[in-house]
Amino acid sequence: MTAPAPSEKALVPFVSVENMMRLVHHIGIERVLTELTDVIEADFRRWELFDKTPRVASHSREGVIELMPTSDGEIYSFKYVNGHPKNMAEGLQTVTAFGLLADVSTGYPVLLTEMTLLTALRTAATSAMAARHLAPKGATTMAMIGNGAQAEFQALAMKAVLGITHVRLFDIDPKATEKTRRNLEGSGLTVMACETSQAAIEGAQIITTCTADKQYATILTDNMVGAGVHINAIGGDCPGKTELHRDILSRAETFVEYPPQTRIEGEIQQMAPDYPVTELWQVVTGQAAGRRDEKQITLFDSVGFAIEDFSALRYVRDRVRGTAFFQSVDLIADPDDPRDLFGMLQRAKD
Amino acid sequence: MTAPAPSEKALVPFVSVENMMRLVHHIGIERVLTELTDVIEADFRRWELFDKTPRVASHSREGVIELMPTSDGEIYSFKYVNGHPKNMAEGLQTVTAFGLLADVSTGYPVLLTEMTLLTALRTAATSAMAARHLAPKGATTMAMIGNGAQAEFQALAMKAVLGITHVRLFDIDPKATEKTRRNLEGSGLTVMACETSQAAIEGAQIITTCTADKQYATILTDNMVGAGVHINAIGGDCPGKTELHRDILSRAETFVEYPPQTRIEGEIQQMAPDYPVTELWQVVTGQAAGRRDEKQITLFDSVGFAIEDFSALRYVRDRVRGTAFFQSVDLIADPDDPRDLFGMLQRAKD
Repeated sequence: MTAPAPSEKALVPFVSVENMMRLVHHIGIERVLTELTDVIEADFRRWELFDKTPRVASHSREGVIELMPTSDGEIYSFKYVNGHPKNMAEGLQTVTAFGLLADVSTGYPVLLTEMTLLTALRTAATSAMAARHLAPKGATTMAMIGNGAQAEFQALAMKAVLGITHVRLFDIDPKATEKTRRNLEGSGLTVMACETSQAAIEGAQIITTCTADKQYATILTDNMVGAGVHINAIGGDCPGKTELHRDILSRAETFVEYPPQTRIEGEIQQMAPDYPVTELWQVVTGQAAGRRDEKQITLFDSVGFAIEDFSALRYVRDRVRGTAFFQSVDLIADPDDPRDLFGMLQRAKD
Repeated sequence: MTAPAPSEKALVPFVSVENMMRLVHHIGIERVLTELTDVIEADFRRWELFDKTPRVASHSREGVIELMPTSDGEIYSFKYVNGHPKNMAEGLQTVTAFGLLADVSTGYPVLLTEMTLLTALRTAATSAMAARHLAPKGATTMAMIGNGAQAEFQALAMKAVLGITHVRLFDIDPKATEKTRRNLEGSGLTVMACETSQAAIEGAQIITTCTADKQYATILTDNMVGAGVHINAIGGDCPGKTELHRDILSRAETFVEYPPQTRIEGEIQQMAPDYPVTELWQVVTGQAAGRRDEKQITLFDSVGFAIEDFSALRYVRDRVRGTAFFQSVDLIADPDDPRDLFGMLQRAKD
């Protein structure tokens, strides 16, 4: 049984988890985070061009599976991503993902890749991109509340893009904090493990919250947040999941990715439907103000949006080209005569 | 640079085009079509259980890219599929597809597979399943109008499931007809190439239309269709694309997969929004009548639905188990400690 070799059009570059790790180390993780930040910012600049739809979610008792498609008219992308908070207790990832780029003009896929790692990288890069426009100038210190799978990526992105030098960690589980501290050894960051979230935010100009329970929680209360800080609220991304007390939202100026999605999933689901928000892309293009003064509390209410995945996929496609960090998989049937799909199948028998 | 071997949970079985062809020949194509027909019918029996949403389409000037998700509460599936009628002129497939099954309780993928071939197989099996309930008893002859990539699959499914013995072919391109005739040599079917569609439908109890132009077309007119035939209209599946004259629809009893989708994409888009249709799953469960008498014209206005892909994916998952017809790909990052995604990345460097 010798099938004819698949044609070149049938082969799609596939980046496995192992190859993604190799690619990241080949480039250097901080450089990846910096370049991703720039690629995402470039796509936020042309925000209006994109097809935008809220993600297509399939909810179950245990979690959610989502498809996040978008297109700029030339390239189409989607990400498959799950969110299962109870997975961790079973030794599984809360969030896993993979994604695809396709050519709009033919519908043929041009890249298939793991996106669990890539989502962590693009989420951190998006946070850094927002902080570049919203954090107080000269910020040196970030508090990191929630020391799970995202923590180190966030810290390194803020170091690489904003130049922060100090990270103050807190998690309700000291083992998570210890894991993060150990992983950041040798990174050049000064890392302090704190015993309360109150202690962690002392002296921090940037507060990143990244906790994952699927329930209303209050990680930060109003009296904890001083004037002038930037809050980077990335934890949770589903209805019923918040991290901040609503009084903080009343004092802060809030920036979001895509309002129709954030009003359902973000911190602002606690607020009235007319709670004012600024779209981050308008800050990037200069159509709206970012941080206006030193006293202002800015909040990036991040839930993650398909365009950030589009940017990350585009980046990976460009960066794997000419390297050995991918395999070619025959995902697409491509007979010589496109009408002769059956003939292709039949000839594979001989 | 030696990454640790990925854990078993990180590995997803992937069925390439080549392996799908091997699997089909290993089982035998007519047996695959028969078994698929039964698996699809079994899922139609529990239709009410499924999450049903119209597909998520991204339209462009040249075509459409769609995501088709569904779930029965235990297993989630989606298919990526494009439709680009102009592709054929460039030597590309009009329709290519791949799909995924995932475990609803963890969100972890359990199968990734090519679906260009599998879609052709499941489309033919769905047609056979509908014809089993709607075609006149003892049908021996099918007319096949449109001799593209679907034609042979349709003919073999009707042979394997219904026992037809004769196929009468017509296509506006005689080369397409000749390709189909040649491919069906040795299949046990008596095949006749016809010079007009009028000639092709002579004596046929089943008329299958499968043409692909993205525009309103009339493949069949009213005077061509005699009493008692079953029409299996599978070509086209988008707004603006029909094959039958509306007078035929006025005389026929029409059966559909999922009315909200078919009213937009199917033949019945020509008709008033209250044009009566019967849902095929209700015929399968006995809640609605299929063919009632010998004079009736039955029409299966097929556009393809996510549950058929779900069934096909489930079938492939069960059938590749224990065989060599798949590869394991590390699509999912799965660190030993799920919170230690960064540590996994870091250790891959050493």
